[in-house]
Order: sequence, then C-alpha cells, then structure tokens
Amino acid sequence: MKTLIENVVIVTMKEEDRPYRGDILIEGDVIKALSPHLTDEADERIDGDGMVAMPGLVNAHQHTPMSLLKGFSDDLKLMDWLNEKMLPAEANMTPEDIYWGAKLSMAEMIRSGTTSFADMYIHMNEIATAVAETGMRASLTRGLVFLENDGGRRMEEALDLVERWNGRADGRITTMLGPHAPYTCPPDPLRRVIKLAEEMNLPVHIHLAETKEEVMVIREKYNETPAEYLYHAGLFERLHVLLAHSVHLNRRDIGYLKGMRGGVSHNPVSNLKLGCGIAPVVDMINQGIIVGLGTDGSGSATTIDMFEEIKAATWLQKLDYGDPSVLPARQVLRMATIEGAKLLNIDHQAGTLEVGKKADLILIDMKKPHLQPIHQVESLLVYGVNGADVDTTIVNGKVLMRNRKLLTINEEELFKQVSVRAQRIVENI
Amino acid sequence: MKTLIENVVIVTMKEEDRPYRGDILIEGDVIKALSPHLTDEADERIDGDGMVAMPGLVNAHQHTPMSLLKGFSDDLKLMDWLNEKMLPAEANMTPEDIYWGAKLSMAEMIRSGTTSFADMYIHMNEIATAVAETGMRASLTRGLVFLENDGGRRMEEALDLVERWNGRADGRITTMLGPHAPYTCPPDPLRRVIKLAEEMNLPVHIHLAETKEEVMVIREKYNETPAEYLYHAGLFERLHVLLAHSVHLNRRDIGYLKGMRGGVSHNPVSNLKLGCGIAPVVDMINQGIIVGLGTDGSGSATTIDMFEEIKAATWLQKLDYGDPSVLPARQVLRMATIEGAKLLNIDHQAGTLEVGKKADLILIDMKKPHLQPIHQVESLLVYGVNGADVDTTIVNGKVLMRNRKLLTINEEELFKQVSVRAQRIVENI
Repeated sequence: MKTLIENVVIVTMKEEDRPYRGDILIEGDVIKALSPHLTDEADERIDGDGMVAMPGLVNAHQHTPMSLLKGFSDDLKLMDWLNEKMLPAEANMTPEDIYWGAKLSMAEMIRSGTTSFADMYIHMNEIATAVAETGMRASLTRGLVFLENDGGRRMEEALDLVERWNGRADGRITTMLGPHAPYTCPPDPLRRVIKLAEEMNLPVHIHLAETKEEVMVIREKYNETPAEYLYHAGLFERLHVLLAHSVHLNRRDIGYLKGMRGGVSHNPVSNLKLGCGIAPVVDMINQGIIVGLGTDGSGSATTIDMFEEIKAATWLQKLDYGDPSVLPARQVLRMATIEGAKLLNIDHQAGTLEVGKKADLILIDMKKPHLQPIHQVESLLVYGVNGADVDTTIVNGKVLMRNRKLLTINEEELFKQVSVRAQRIVENI
Repeated sequence: MKTLIENVVIVTMKEEDRPYRGDILIEGDVIKALSPHLTDEADERIDGDGMVAMPGLVNAHQHTPMSLLKGFSDDLKLMDWLNEKMLPAEANMTPEDIYWGAKLSMAEMIRSGTTSFADMYIHMNEIATAVAETGMRASLTRGLVFLENDGGRRMEEALDLVERWNGRADGRITTMLGPHAPYTCPPDPLRRVIKLAEEMNLPVHIHLAETKEEVMVIREKYNETPAEYLYHAGLFERLHVLLAHSVHLNRRDIGYLKGMRGGVSHNPVSNLKLGCGIAPVVDMINQGIIVGLGTDGSGSATTIDMFEEIKAATWLQKLDYGDPSVLPARQVLRMATIEGAKLLNIDHQAGTLEVGKKADLILIDMKKPHLQPIHQVESLLVYGVNGADVDTTIVNGKVLMRNRKLLTINEEELFKQVSVRAQRIVENI
C-alpha cells in the first residue's frame, strides 16, 4: 500500500530543517520519501494544498480512562477533588468502563493530532485492547502503589501487561514499569521495582514533585526532596525514566536529574488547573534534561488537546521569566514531538518526519480565518492552531482520521457507552 | 421573522439560573420566549439536540486589523516586537488593509462564538463598515496618542467616528473616546478628553498598567502609579470607563478603581504571551470591580478565540493563589458574557439570555469526544470547549454562522485579500 501526500507544507521537526513545500510518500508503515517533488505511483493520493504536514504529537503523560470523569469535579480543593470525587469514582469503574474510557480519550487524541501517548492506570489489558483496535501507538504502564501492602496483585498485573503486550499490535505497544510516586512507594518496594526494571530492561514511568504538599510529605518522611529520594534509590543510574510533572524541583534537584536517561513530561494545563505551580522547564532544558509535553488525565485537565499544552507551556515560561522570547515556537513544537518520542523511547520510530521512520503524521488545515495570513508557519502551529484544525491523522502508515472523520472508532456507539457508564459511576457519590 | 431553537440545553448566565433543557423563540432582533417547552409557529426551526445555547461572548478589548500581522513577530522581546515589527508594519497599512484585517478578525470571532467586541484602532470608518456588513455588535474607539502634538487630526477622526457611526447599523455600533494610555496621554490633553467625554456623554476606552515598564515610566514622569495618574486626572469620577489590561495594580491602585463605572478587560493570553504578568483579577472582583475578558489584537495574542481566554483566565488565578477552587467555571463564564457586556455598556441588550434582550447567542455542539460524557455543562464550557465547537452564531436575531458556514462573509475572497495585503505590508521590514 502506497500513499502519496502531495503539495503540502512539510514541517519535519528535524533540528536543521525549515518548513518547505513538497510531497510525502508512505509505503506500508514507513515514510519512504520526502521531497519537493515526487513522481511515484501510489494507491492513494491526498491533496495537501493549504495544509501543513508535521509529526504526530506525543502525549507523554496520560491516564486515559479518566475521560469518563471529565467535568465531574472541577474547581475543588486538591484533597476534596481526590478524596471526595476521584477515588470513590475510580472505585466504581469496571474493566469494561476502563476500556470505553480509554477509547474515548483515544478518539479525542486522534481528533486533535496525537499519535502516541504514555498511559499509567489500572486494568491495562483493557487499555491495550483499545490501543490495538484504534491504531494508536502507546507506552503502557500499570501504576504501582505500595501503601497498605506489598503491592503483590498490582505487581502481577504489571508483569502480565509486559508479557502480554510488550511489542504487540504491530509493534505499536511498548510497556514500562510504573512505581506511582515517591509518596506511594516506600524505599524497599521502590528498590525492588528498580532492580526488576533493570533486569527486564524496561523503562520506568513515575510521578515526581507534582505538588508542594508532596515535597513536605517526603521531607517529613525521609528528610529529602522527592528528587533526592528517587536519586538515592538509584532510579537515575541506569534506567530510562519518564518523570511526570516535576513542578517543585529546586536547583539541586535539577542537578540530580542531569545526565539521566529519559526525562520529564511537563503537563502545564493540569498544573495550572490544579493550582500546582510552574515547572522549571527552561532551567531543566538548560541542564540538558529532555522535556516533553503531556496532558495528564482529563479528570484533572479536562482537555487532552496537545495544542493546548503547547500554548500553555510556552505561555508559562514567558510569564515566569517576564520575557516573551523564552521557549520560542520551534522549541516547544519539538517538545511536543521528538522530545516526547525520546521520553517514550520511540524516537528511532517517531517524533520527526524522516525517511525510514514510521509514518506517524498529521495534516493541519490552514484554510481558516484564525490561521490566515501565514507569515511564519511554526508560529501559527504554536500560538494559533487548536486540535480541531487537524484534518488527517496517520499512525504506522494507517489513516485513523481523514477529513475529520474517525475511521477506526464508531463515535455514535462510543458516546452511548460512555454516557451510560459515566452516569452509573458517579451515581452515589 | 420568527426562529425557534428547539430542545437545547439553555445556559442563560443569569445569576439565579442553572442549565435546563428547553426552547428559545427569536422574533425579529429580540428573544421573545425561553421555556422548557414552546409551541409557537416559526419561519425557521433549529434542532438544538446535543447542543448548548448560551449568550454570545463579549470580547472587551481588541485591535481587529492586527490580524494581518498574526504570527509575524512572535517570541521577540517587547521593545523589538513593537519597534522593529509592529510600528513599521502598521505604518504600511492602508485604509483598505484595515477594512480587510478587521473583517478577518470578525470572521474568526463569529467562528469562535464572539458576538460583540470593543475595538480601538485607526481608520475606524473602515472597521465600522466591516461591522455593518458582517452583522456583529461593536463598541468602536479611535485611539488617541498625544506624544508629538495635540493629536488634532486624531481628535477629528475620533469625533467623526462618533458622529457617523454611534447608534448605527441597526443600533449594533456604539462608540467610545479612546485616550490610548497613561504613557501616551499627558495631563492636559487627557483632561481635555475626559471633559469632552463627559459633555458628549461617551464612555472612555483606555489601556492601563499593561507592563512593569509602564509603571516605571509613569513613576518617573509624574511620581505616581498609572492608576493614580488616571484617578487624579478625574477619569473615575463620572465616566463609564473601559480599562484594558490593568496587570500591574497594587492594593492602593485597586482602591482607586473601586466604585468606578465600567471596569477592566482582562486579557490573559496577551499578558502571558508578552510576558507581562498576572492581573489581580480576584482581588479586583473582591472589591466589586467589574472584570470582563478580551483577547487584545492577534498581532500579540495570535488567537482571538475567547474560549482560550476563558481557560487562561481561570488557570492563571488558580496558579496565582495555588488553589484550584479560585475563579470557578460559572464566574469566568459570566466574565466572558454579562460582565463584558457591562464593560461595553450594552448589558441592557446583551450578555444573558433573557426575554426582551437582543438575540445575541451561540449554539455549541457537544457531540464530540472531548465534550462527552456531560457531568456539568458549565465545567465543560470552560475547561473543554474551544471556538471550533461553536456551531451557530446569532447576532441581533440574524444568523451569522450556521453549521460552521459563515453567512455574511465570503471566506475565499477574504483569504485572497489578506494574503496579498499581509505580504505587501511586511515586505521591506
């Protein structure tokens, strides 16, 4: 199967490239050619006139099934949000709910230009099934909490996920181990997970320093900062680690992360909406730490449109530094694509448009009042575009959305399912 | 002409109302009836199933023609942005450019649910003509700068605008006087404009305390804060005043504004993107000051989608207070509707859905993955919806957009015009 996208403005997101007009040839699941003019035969032709082609966005931190709880518990204090709303609702969720909630998030992600995501949740088998069906690319992680016990059942499920799904769905699914956070993982189980991840050669996905309260709790328990705590547990020695949030890091904490494999998923919308603070993104980047972007779950962020994160990320750094030149368009676009791909450990396959990489790409329709006239394409992609401007989404060479029609998800059935399920889940809360 | 919108979720934005399902009858330019079930005959019926009806959004601070410069000068230091890009580009703009630039912003506003806006710019006759043609509602102001001279020509144009356009276009156009800002209006001309506004019974639209630099300049010139400077000039004594920005106000400054007629247009996206800071929105509201939302021009903000401002406004206050319960959904929705209408002095006509008010309303299509399931409508309107979810826009009883098709603007011609003009304007810069 050969698909030719013709006469499109190509934004490869490779360091050295600038936007240019050209054609893209996809053969099977890979990008076969990229050039100002291709003359190849193709089974399918897509007219790219008036469109921009760029790498699909990488959402580096998600809890997809929380889509069932979006808009259920906004404008509450953090602890009320968690204890009175989220935890009781999650306790009511069945494996089937998880499947439909995950699928709902995937529908939204495909519609807004995300092609890959990193997910940490429960009932991961259901989520993996949804990934296999929808055609997305994902790094899946069973969250591991060790508060009341040794996490035995959870560890079993984590290993089951790896065994069943790592490398499956045409290679679109990979897995990580997921010790949930410093405050839910005491030293012994944390070290056991680290050792296991090293033995199994698996990356680790973990929350870090999302709130001030977490910093206080870890200080009280261990007389360390959360970053110090992970550092001393040996997390940053050999493993590829995906750190979510990392809002409350001081200068010394950033030093602990320096030189690590993997990096940080910055989730500005969730951080804003929960009143957590501004992550030291520019400081981390200046120390060579890889920073990508994520949405967090829609239970907190509501929107999982990565173009909202792109805007929020650069706005917040400009605000923090009082300087509009900080974190310019190109750099934040790289965070949403190739830097995120590095975090998911899939940058050999995704994150840029390059011959030989997997065909994970999106077409953005610029024929809209808010995207005209075009002075600088990358500026408009960052400060102007939103998810609804994505016309076509392609993952692994397969078209998942064309002209804003989803091709792998039945939306009518989806809406029916999630509406009934959501109502049941919150009924008695 | 009677239009009946049937079976829609109605969000009136009146203080005492909560969302309910019902019908809306529009007769001529006014809302004739609102009820759970209407049985009236109508010339046109709109099926509102799966939609939310709410008042059209009020954009309380705009410079519409700057749409021609969007994406032209992002990520620059403020003074470079102004001196090397904006001022030379604006100097190249002809009256015809102004007309097309304004129309481009109006196309974007109608598409994203804005029905009324306050505009301050030059060549206001061209902008008024565009307002008359597109069918929007607007408060127009000729910006008055008195730096090199007495502003004679500008004053003449300001008065010409009032004479020609105040109350015209079926009453959709009103006008204000526009002393530009404390740093461009010395005491004498400022007092002259205030006196004139009082005599003519016109409101005033002015920038205030957008940047730290402005505070320093005014301190050096007059040994006052910008708010003190306006207070001592008598601006807050009798006039209805629309203050744009008001980012850098201290506690005493807020005291000077207390009890004023009119209030503040908060423009969070522009403030973020230019690295200006966070306006003390909650503090102002707590002192009884009316605060609405605006986008500023797209030369700075890029997007003029008011749903972006809605999100940014509540995010920033939550961040500033470290508290997610601050500025909840309902309150920020009121800022974007009825509070903005108060700022434009049109709250007797717009800003809520009420029998007898003008029919300025929008329909939002909720049948989207990012807006399902629906736990709380107002939460989704704030944290989930973006401009592209607006299906229908009605101003003064006239449908300006239906099913996302603009009915008063030819987009193809618009894009051709703005593309050629934008290129010419920036050619030698």
